[in-house]
Amino acid sequence: MELELDILKENKRLALENERRLTTNGILAIDVMGSVGSGKTSLIKAMIHELKSRSRIAVIEGDVTTTIDADLIASEGVAAVQVNTGKECHLDANLIRKALDRMSLNSLDLIFIENVGNLICPAEFPLGSKKRLVVISVTEGPYMVLKHPMMFLGADAVAINKVDLADAMGVSPTKLMADVAKLYPKSVAVGTSCRNGVGVEKVIEALGLKAR
Amino acid sequence: MELELDILKENKRLALENERRLTTNGILAIDVMGSVGSGKTSLIKAMIHELKSRSRIAVIEGDVTTTIDADLIASEGVAAVQVNTGKECHLDANLIRKALDRMSLNSLDLIFIENVGNLICPAEFPLGSKKRLVVISVTEGPYMVLKHPMMFLGADAVAINKVDLADAMGVSPTKLMADVAKLYPKSVAVGTSCRNGVGVEKVIEALGLKAR
Repeated sequence: MELELDILKENKRLALENERRLTTNGILAIDVMGSVGSGKTSLIKAMIHELKSRSRIAVIEGDVTTTIDADLIASEGVAAVQVNTGKECHLDANLIRKALDRMSLNSLDLIFIENVGNLICPAEFPLGSKKRLVVISVTEGPYMVLKHPMMFLGADAVAINKVDLADAMGVSPTKLMADVAKLYPKSVAVGTSCRNGVGVEKVIEALGLKAR
Repeated sequence: MELELDILKENKRLALENERRLTTNGILAIDVMGSVGSGKTSLIKAMIHELKSRSRIAVIEGDVTTTIDADLIASEGVAAVQVNTGKECHLDANLIRKALDRMSLNSLDLIFIENVGNLICPAEFPLGSKKRLVVISVTEGPYMVLKHPMMFLGADAVAINKVDLADAMGVSPTKLMADVAKLYPKSVAVGTSCRNGVGVEKVIEALGLKAR
């Protein structure tokens, strides 16, 4: 559909604009994507906990309707800007542009953008972030990588979360890692358990945040 | 957006057409919705197992790109019609119309329609089914009902799946049931564990399939 192509093209243009604006301000932005309840907020919280002593961090929280995640993030003591999409199933570059307008960009080093919980729609809408992190959970079963290839193309890192429940679920994190490696070899897949802090440091490294 | 309204209106028209066609053929169709890996396929399989001796059943399997679920369903010995949506995040009435064209409607009593794994987009697109079943899982965390109210409005039944993992997750099925009851009191919420067959009979009852 032509209209759809126009929307995607305009989104790409605004994403590039956001990227330039972020680079000018020396900010690294990370788009965090994944299904409902995969653990995006928990992983962002865990990373903030590790990084906040050496980086100035803020979070843009995308959600259909509530402020639950923004409230959770605020408990880490960093600024969280809420973006409600209404019925829309993904953030877009224009929503991020407006969120950036509300932030003090010259006093930030790092922005996590938590996308709407959904393994399909966010893939098509770049936001202007330099990096992409996809969070999946072993509790989503053995097929979620194979079923949603678009989501993993271009992901700098993939967190395979809730590995502490892998045995109870009968799902193999190693197999999921192999699925990711086959789809997009450049991606670094890491088994994580936010509850126990497992793998958080490795995700930070995979996103190039270690030296920051 | 006007175009969006037109699409929704045309979808509604086709949904009514599907509904009439199903009624004429004495078929009950059930739209099964829920996030990635919530257990939609497993629950459909478990219900088919209970019902297939007394009802003639087929399944329409919606998926972005693979035939994994259709293959799983076929193992129960009923016909599964695959519908791949490409990049689309939901089934629509037109896709169902075309799927019905490929089925022998005069030799069926019951059709399960497994929607694309997603807790947002399918809510807006009625398909022509008489009943709606939403499948969520305790492993998706404590907030998925509150975060996606649209999905639960109009759901005849809500299966709260993987209850055997509720303690390991620290998530209360009772609280999730209360969230559903508050949003849409007409909905019947049932705790299920497809792995152990827990609750399957109750879901069948909640969907009015017991007497069939």
